[in-house]
Amino acid sequence: MKFEIDTLGIIRSPYKEKFAIPRQPGLVKSARARLELRPPYDQPDVLRGIEQFSHLWLSFVFHQTMAQGWHPTVRPPRLGGNERVGVFATRSTFRPNPLGLSVVELHGVGRERGKLWLELGAVDLLDGTPIVDIKPYIPYADSLPDARGGFAPDAPTPPLAVNFSPEAEQQLQPWLKAHPELRLLVSEVLAQDPRPAYKKGKPDDKEYGVRLFDCNVRFRISEPSCLVLAIEPAQ
Amino acid sequence: MKFEIDTLGIIRSPYKEKFAIPRQPGLVKSARARLELRPPYDQPDVLRGIEQFSHLWLSFVFHQTMAQGWHPTVRPPRLGGNERVGVFATRSTFRPNPLGLSVVELHGVGRERGKLWLELGAVDLLDGTPIVDIKPYIPYADSLPDARGGFAPDAPTPPLAVNFSPEAEQQLQPWLKAHPELRLLVSEVLAQDPRPAYKKGKPDDKEYGVRLFDCNVRFRISEPSCLVLAIEPAQ
Repeated sequence: MKFEIDTLGIIRSPYKEKFAIPRQPGLVKSARARLELRPPYDQPDVLRGIEQFSHLWLSFVFHQTMAQGWHPTVRPPRLGGNERVGVFATRSTFRPNPLGLSVVELHGVGRERGKLWLELGAVDLLDGTPIVDIKPYIPYADSLPDARGGFAPDAPTPPLAVNFSPEAEQQLQPWLKAHPELRLLVSEVLAQDPRPAYKKGKPDDKEYGVRLFDCNVRFRISEPSCLVLAIEPAQ
Repeated sequence: MKFEIDTLGIIRSPYKEKFAIPRQPGLVKSARARLELRPPYDQPDVLRGIEQFSHLWLSFVFHQTMAQGWHPTVRPPRLGGNERVGVFATRSTFRPNPLGLSVVELHGVGRERGKLWLELGAVDLLDGTPIVDIKPYIPYADSLPDARGGFAPDAPTPPLAVNFSPEAEQQLQPWLKAHPELRLLVSEVLAQDPRPAYKKGKPDDKEYGVRLFDCNVRFRISEPSCLVLAIEPAQ
């Protein structure tokens, strides 16, 4: 049996590429986003009373990786990228139905010039992600602090201390007008160590880049430090 | 943008009709179920390591009500069935994409004669429900005990004391061979008061019936009590 589902809204977030997106939404607190509702779902009525809830569940589509299909087993980064587990024992993107699930903070409802959106905090969602469902977080039903968390029992401790080079510090300034949270965002995103698992624990002189908003953040990692080299306009 | 999603598996549960299904999965502890995987997803590899987790998120399709479409606002039973709130401020079935979300206990993986299934506890899912995703519950990310729960801040206290008539008690006995948990299940399901909200708080001499497994449970409610009148084979 197959079902057709429609895009209810689109995420607008600082994450312009999959690289460096945190594994769960709460890990990078300053990654704020918007969920813009699309017609015919952009009626204020559909959100009536939603501000009573502090958090929402978003069901979304892994639109950038869905064409790659699914695999019966995957190698989660939490296990160092070597050990294989079943796809349903993970939240990997490479699943039979490309559905993701994220709990996000709700900061409010916005409405202007015929547009309707939700203001969200701390997302792990790529800019442009199609949202297919919005549900309130109900703590009495959803919060199970004693659940057994398998290979992800605790939140990963951000392993890196992030420093800005004098050049990056200077380049950062003009961006702060449009994105006052950018300094914190860069720090939180890079502190997670976004490199592939096989790079970790070894000397690494590679220069990496990640796109956040419209800027390209260049950095180098020498564990346990990360140096932000430059913050430049993205091409 | 529309997406096609496939049925990965089917729920086998005691609930044969929508009436009397609890609002959330944890409320009726003895409603155990199976999730039977379907080809081509019924490969043991897809579940490798899943027993490390005590709970799973199931995304499912509200298959029995989806043909009825969606409404911008709904009247949740929690608000007495009178007050309207936006559909995205609820988990109502009448949503644009007929997707449901349930956290369920995982009791184990079963495999026999080419069939592969998950043993689940405490579900709120109709027999035959199509499952479209299975993800592990990750407590560090998913458990937010301090979230604000809006109009559903606490679990509803089961309002009714359930008693069995001598006739029902006698009729129950043969069913217990196939379903040892049936007595408890009937008690837990009826204790919630499954009647429509407008019936509550008034004298009610109507006789109700609910189908659990292959039996029809007949009962009458005189608040704060519920009397089970009969347990008969369902037609």
